[in-house]
Amino acid sequence: MTSTVVTNIGQLVTNDPAAADLLGVIDDAALVVEGSTVAWTGPATDAPTADEQVDAGGRTVIPGFVDSHSHLVFAGDRAAEFAARMAGESYAAGGIRTTVAATRAASDEELTSHVAGLVAEMRRQGTTTVEIKSGYGLSVLDEARSLAVARQFTEETTYLGAHVVPDGTTPEEYVALVTGAMLEACAPHARWVDAFCESGAFDADQSRAVLEAGMAAGLEGRLHANQLGPGPGVRLACELGLTAVDHCTYLTDADVAALADSGTIATLLPGVEFSTRQPYPDARRLLDAGVTIALASDCNPGSSFTSSIPLCIALAVREMGMTPAEALYAVTAGGAAALGRDDVGVLTPGKRADLAFLDAPSYVHLAYRPGVPLVTSTWLGGRPL
Amino acid sequence: MTSTVVTNIGQLVTNDPAAADLLGVIDDAALVVEGSTVAWTGPATDAPTADEQVDAGGRTVIPGFVDSHSHLVFAGDRAAEFAARMAGESYAAGGIRTTVAATRAASDEELTSHVAGLVAEMRRQGTTTVEIKSGYGLSVLDEARSLAVARQFTEETTYLGAHVVPDGTTPEEYVALVTGAMLEACAPHARWVDAFCESGAFDADQSRAVLEAGMAAGLEGRLHANQLGPGPGVRLACELGLTAVDHCTYLTDADVAALADSGTIATLLPGVEFSTRQPYPDARRLLDAGVTIALASDCNPGSSFTSSIPLCIALAVREMGMTPAEALYAVTAGGAAALGRDDVGVLTPGKRADLAFLDAPSYVHLAYRPGVPLVTSTWLGGRPL
Repeated sequence: MTSTVVTNIGQLVTNDPAAADLLGVIDDAALVVEGSTVAWTGPATDAPTADEQVDAGGRTVIPGFVDSHSHLVFAGDRAAEFAARMAGESYAAGGIRTTVAATRAASDEELTSHVAGLVAEMRRQGTTTVEIKSGYGLSVLDEARSLAVARQFTEETTYLGAHVVPDGTTPEEYVALVTGAMLEACAPHARWVDAFCESGAFDADQSRAVLEAGMAAGLEGRLHANQLGPGPGVRLACELGLTAVDHCTYLTDADVAALADSGTIATLLPGVEFSTRQPYPDARRLLDAGVTIALASDCNPGSSFTSSIPLCIALAVREMGMTPAEALYAVTAGGAAALGRDDVGVLTPGKRADLAFLDAPSYVHLAYRPGVPLVTSTWLGGRPL
Repeated sequence: MTSTVVTNIGQLVTNDPAAADLLGVIDDAALVVEGSTVAWTGPATDAPTADEQVDAGGRTVIPGFVDSHSHLVFAGDRAAEFAARMAGESYAAGGIRTTVAATRAASDEELTSHVAGLVAEMRRQGTTTVEIKSGYGLSVLDEARSLAVARQFTEETTYLGAHVVPDGTTPEEYVALVTGAMLEACAPHARWVDAFCESGAFDADQSRAVLEAGMAAGLEGRLHANQLGPGPGVRLACELGLTAVDHCTYLTDADVAALADSGTIATLLPGVEFSTRQPYPDARRLLDAGVTIALASDCNPGSSFTSSIPLCIALAVREMGMTPAEALYAVTAGGAAALGRDDVGVLTPGKRADLAFLDAPSYVHLAYRPGVPLVTSTWLGGRPL
């Protein structure tokens, strides 16, 4: 097994839980990779030798971003809808149907090629783990093939048949399909089951039915909730002991308490609020209550067509009361927690050597230099891409 | 002279003033370059032949960004000050002094290398013309060498000795220096003269003295004004017939009327408001009054350490009431107007072939895909960088 020592790291973020600071920062550091995992981290002066040596040139090295929420399997775009919304129209979940029609009309090859392009774009920006949902098929065939496409790119695939109720069917009929034949076709391709618990999509009883059926079929649960207004979704997620509940824009004190008590991760998606001009979720309130936060892109053509985790960091710091350290933690270790993963998001011995090099002397620059593509190299499993 | 035809352009933005739409958009277009200038634009089906052919692969082609306001000549950074400000401290112009000390301590080679890095970073993001100010020297020697460094990278150099009053001197003494020996040393390296007309920096009389002395020495005038609060700067700029006045965050109705009447360009710098958590300037109000707007980065280590013009576009659309078309115009033709240039910012025959290729089917994606590095290639004077 080949070993590589990365020397001359100006600042190394490890997220080591044993460190005194949140990020486990080591200045003037080195890191040793053996095969696909981290073998050693520490001060450069103590670095062991290895088969190969890479000079980081004083750059900052961080764990690769873990983007725990995306909807990459789709066709078409909604640039005109975006421009109209920015000119004053409000965001409506029904716009999803536009993408459903384009996605159904696309070939498997077109969908695969499109996902490949977006995943490559994410990788260039430092993302090393990405969750990908279905949800623009809304038929047995199209949901199953969406997940089969996603599975080519990640193990973190999520069955989101319950995205919206498609035209031509009643909610009752559709929930029966989502919990029946569609689940059967999709479960082999998915790790997670999800639902959009929101006014205009699925209510709490319908969401519960979808999640319980999915979990009975061996999937793990996560939920979209409280994006467009207050609602029962966050408490449902906590009651069911889901790994994560996503959006959390409109929360009551009872919702915050339920999150703190349950340990369910709150995934915040500020690209959505940026792109829909909604108010941002209050991350500070959640952190102060002891809730663990993940930040993710929600990359999708309707409400957040960004793949940029650095933008999410900058928005979390500008708009949501997070420090640069808390925001970086939330897109690495927080994202990993939201996927129930302990092998990524951390750079300590034994963990996956998924990492990003930043053309910056400090991780703070991810927030301090908004919009600037600072990632110069992304390593996946110990190797540069 | 070699000619090149760029074919298979999905969407071409020309900013042709003769077009019916603001951006002079041509779908399914081609563009011919001869030497360093544009020779022809039009529908791909009508494209003439040329010595060389480049396939744009369906990408969007836009005029290169004209970033009319930056402060790239400095040393050190202020990441800690940024993080403290995000944790609740307010922005104070006095922070400039931190950078002055670091800049004075840096060698010419260090300053040049640092500017080269930032200009390269801008170029990768699609910027083809950049204005660079002095203003972190604040001594005859350090202002003059700052401009000499800047002049290696652009013709658009601006003498900003009147940035703040340095420690150890009175405002009266310093204005005498800025309008005397410092001006004499700096004028040979500068095209523009500028002052920071703001509470805590220079008042209207002092700013007027600096501008009039600079103009008497053959420089053209521009001004920082109305950034941190209401003030006399915008009206002073209009009265003096300056090409541009920059920031314009706090404007009275009289300020807006003066801008509309004078034709002075209002340069808005949303990276500052993003990074200082100040309210954004109201671009819509200015556009509705008939004022021409430029958007620029204000790239500097204190209040806006972004070099990303695409971020400025996204912020202008999200926060300032501009359409994606108005925002793109403001960073191309608007930036050119703010520099008194008519050879850049437009892709019509005879203009400089400075352009950027976007991995997107439409320019709208610059706002629709915030944070995503969409620029795949930047051409300067008809040649890829």
